[in-house]
Amino acid sequence: VDSEFELIGRLIARLPPPGLRVPVGPGDDAAVTEPAGAVVTTVDSVVEGVHFTLPEFPLPAVGRKALASALSDIAAMGADPGEAYVAAAVPERLRAQQIEELLGSLGEAASRYRVALAGGDLSRAPVLMLAVTAVGYQGDGPLVRRQGARPGDVIVLTGELGGAAAALRVLGDERRRQALEPGVADALVARQLDPQPRLRAGSVLAATGARAMIDISDGLGADALHVSTAGRVALEIELERVPVQAGVAEVAGGEREAIEVAATGGDDLELLAILPSDQVERAAEAVASGGCALTSIGVVSEGSGVTLRLPDGGELEPRGYDHLRS
Amino acid sequence: VDSEFELIGRLIARLPPPGLRVPVGPGDDAAVTEPAGAVVTTVDSVVEGVHFTLPEFPLPAVGRKALASALSDIAAMGADPGEAYVAAAVPERLRAQQIEELLGSLGEAASRYRVALAGGDLSRAPVLMLAVTAVGYQGDGPLVRRQGARPGDVIVLTGELGGAAAALRVLGDERRRQALEPGVADALVARQLDPQPRLRAGSVLAATGARAMIDISDGLGADALHVSTAGRVALEIELERVPVQAGVAEVAGGEREAIEVAATGGDDLELLAILPSDQVERAAEAVASGGCALTSIGVVSEGSGVTLRLPDGGELEPRGYDHLRS
Repeated sequence: VDSEFELIGRLIARLPPPGLRVPVGPGDDAAVTEPAGAVVTTVDSVVEGVHFTLPEFPLPAVGRKALASALSDIAAMGADPGEAYVAAAVPERLRAQQIEELLGSLGEAASRYRVALAGGDLSRAPVLMLAVTAVGYQGDGPLVRRQGARPGDVIVLTGELGGAAAALRVLGDERRRQALEPGVADALVARQLDPQPRLRAGSVLAATGARAMIDISDGLGADALHVSTAGRVALEIELERVPVQAGVAEVAGGEREAIEVAATGGDDLELLAILPSDQVERAAEAVASGGCALTSIGVVSEGSGVTLRLPDGGELEPRGYDHLRS
Repeated sequence: VDSEFELIGRLIARLPPPGLRVPVGPGDDAAVTEPAGAVVTTVDSVVEGVHFTLPEFPLPAVGRKALASALSDIAAMGADPGEAYVAAAVPERLRAQQIEELLGSLGEAASRYRVALAGGDLSRAPVLMLAVTAVGYQGDGPLVRRQGARPGDVIVLTGELGGAAAALRVLGDERRRQALEPGVADALVARQLDPQPRLRAGSVLAATGARAMIDISDGLGADALHVSTAGRVALEIELERVPVQAGVAEVAGGEREAIEVAATGGDDLELLAILPSDQVERAAEAVASGGCALTSIGVVSEGSGVTLRLPDGGELEPRGYDHLRS
């Protein structure tokens, strides 16, 4: 058995140099950074049995998911990603090679986003758990908070929803997966195993005047409620305008069910932003130039609360995933 | 049952305002800080069954221990503490009131150290686990790394060792506790239930010329090895000069056993620093003025590795706590 220190040493050796902004990287008591302006910091955890299950999730996917979830909060502030710090708690059944595979994939994902893995902590636990602290920096635009929506503003959404929730029903259910077109199934599953934080879109939305922004991690309804509460305004969302990922209807058992999955499922890591109505076109073009769709899904009005209007005129309750109730 | 959001809202409402350096505190996608100079960041976890056991540890002690362990790394850089971010994973058997008690005590401890609890994450897990990311800032002195020791330098130690390891044998063993003087027993137990990071001593040591520094979390021998390896020097420590906390000998079963506990036990959160020999007296006076003893326990020489010399001339192996082996 390797010692903790040997394993950590090998993991650090595999990381790229942390870059000029990080004069002291992993391996000391703490990392040292030299930020030039406002710093954005968030922490996000993934826990085996709660956010993922083994072996449905390959180990490298666990590292990618943990990092992407934390970076999605950086994207939701409109900030550029900087460093990440990882607290990993691993069960005894994982061999040193598996821990290396897990944390190595996290390092590779970090490189992909130009994030320096600047520090961490390794410990035992009965189940696998990663807590990722992500640090970002103000970019071209201002930082965007959850508050700030005003009556008359337009609600926009990046990409498509429902894929991450539908993917959970496909993972480990080979029969269900076979019933889908291979490309459709792969794209769904990638929403869980290789989720992509909308870093570029977040940065562009901040620079094109987004007044409020949040990432969809608890579900469209629940996250819209956060924006409504923080801004003391009402959000009215037309669910038929929400783009639903291909394959969700097949997995959910119908179009109406697909809309419900898209409105309440979490984990898609798309961004919900509030734009002044005269900025929507410009923002959509700028976001599209980065390969991401931006769709208007509703309007902000005076009042409070969130309305999720169904195509038939009915409404869905704006609830989402609650980590303590579930 | 409270929802996650209601509980988080109540926890945030109990926190003091985060201060001028934190324009956006808890409750948004990420916290925003505006640091003026170099930033020091570390992450540290405590896991039920690994770093503490329930109910031997009251819940407020778990929060205090997690925060203190992370701040100890900030102290070991000679930095001033700034913000903390907490990823909490709590088992279902804990009621909302208990979670509030746990995280509330963490908030109180943070206030004691003038640390702003600027963000966090709450999730379910089969066992209780806290990962604390602590952020600090360069103070009057330079930041002090593990590397930098030179032959001829003096090895100094803050406070006393052995208490935290001995406390583990006393907690939950009422007979053993009754065999000690009450004040001695309380001081031992406090090493686990309310450990104190040496923030002031760390800052003073940085300002008085410490060339290298580390906190004793894995054990004196193991942590001295980190300093030896990073600095490519040998460390020779005379164990009879290491101050051992009162009561450790009684708990360990003898003076020789007490020295072993002090040399290999972790968690004491004392600082091991390397000073140029002509700075030792001045540093000891400055550290003592903050109510903390500073003791010379050995010298740095050319070569490699750590020697832990026993009073009888023998040696102890410089090993410590390994989170993956134990």
